[in-house]
Amino acid sequence: MQLLEDRIRRDGIIRDGGVLKVDSFLNHQMDVPFFAQMAKEFERLYHNCGINKILTIEASGIGVACITAQYFGCPVVFAKKSKTLNIAGDVWTAKVKSFTHGKVYDVIVSKDYLSASDRVLIIDDFLANGAALQGLIDIVRQSGAELIGAGICIEKAFQPGGELIRGMGVRVESLARIKSMSVENGVEFC
Amino acid sequence: MQLLEDRIRRDGIIRDGGVLKVDSFLNHQMDVPFFAQMAKEFERLYHNCGINKILTIEASGIGVACITAQYFGCPVVFAKKSKTLNIAGDVWTAKVKSFTHGKVYDVIVSKDYLSASDRVLIIDDFLANGAALQGLIDIVRQSGAELIGAGICIEKAFQPGGELIRGMGVRVESLARIKSMSVENGVEFC
Repeated sequence: MQLLEDRIRRDGIIRDGGVLKVDSFLNHQMDVPFFAQMAKEFERLYHNCGINKILTIEASGIGVACITAQYFGCPVVFAKKSKTLNIAGDVWTAKVKSFTHGKVYDVIVSKDYLSASDRVLIIDDFLANGAALQGLIDIVRQSGAELIGAGICIEKAFQPGGELIRGMGVRVESLARIKSMSVENGVEFC
Repeated sequence: MQLLEDRIRRDGIIRDGGVLKVDSFLNHQMDVPFFAQMAKEFERLYHNCGINKILTIEASGIGVACITAQYFGCPVVFAKKSKTLNIAGDVWTAKVKSFTHGKVYDVIVSKDYLSASDRVLIIDDFLANGAALQGLIDIVRQSGAELIGAGICIEKAFQPGGELIRGMGVRVESLARIKSMSVENGVEFC
């Protein structure tokens, strides 16, 4: 998506160690009118797929998931991250390893809000190692819901998540796919 | 707001100890078409106030803040909760005591995204003891931005937060104000 690539080139800040800061428009300050453009593109890509639920994970996926849900006319469920093992009630759960924080946490969705009658689109802001996305896919499969695919804003295609998850037979649509990036040379897209 | 009161009566689940579960439509599963109705009401209440930024706090405030931002044509900034004292970069910060979890955490907003040129509407899903809202107000005041007011979905008016914050001279508009609630007698609104 040209609009997103242009925005990353203009406002993204590259840090050493493969870090791309886009918190001026995507995941701290959120440019909601711009989100609507990304949402329309997700709707174009997953048009006529019968999607009746969008699944995301707290916190930075929630904004784009909600704006996208308006174009599908469906609710959003956000998976909660929990560091406790005290999981109350009936929940679907998966373990996710955070590469950023070096910790394993539980991801939780209430069984009340995801079931075999759902056709699910997963939405998230980033795909890198794919740990969070794998956790969400695991939860969808536990619930018996049909996983239609995933819609990602920015994929770091030089990290293994995208290949791994497409290799599992899951449709993954990323609006911007970064082939390489460095402080010296900036961002190159696929 | 009649629509929200009706929804709470229909779908809210009351638990002992003043707990109101509305996670079927507000803060786990999010009924986005319904959020648009709440957003329109916030826009009606804060029409012509020159709001150019919405501030909320992760995670459950983000959805309604983003849908509301569409009606104001402005970005959302969400404050991050941090349990670490390792705060990197230039941030506004406040300490918030969670009554639910019995812990104190830091709330953080980058100085890049909140400044004296902003006219801020704070949006959140719940107001009870007012600790989170006080933290956000503190951050707005540190930044020099003008605080126009707060828009809350559900206020537990039997807890002290609303009175406390209105007493500070802050305009607080709550779409549903709960006067009392109990497992036996259900919810009574103000």
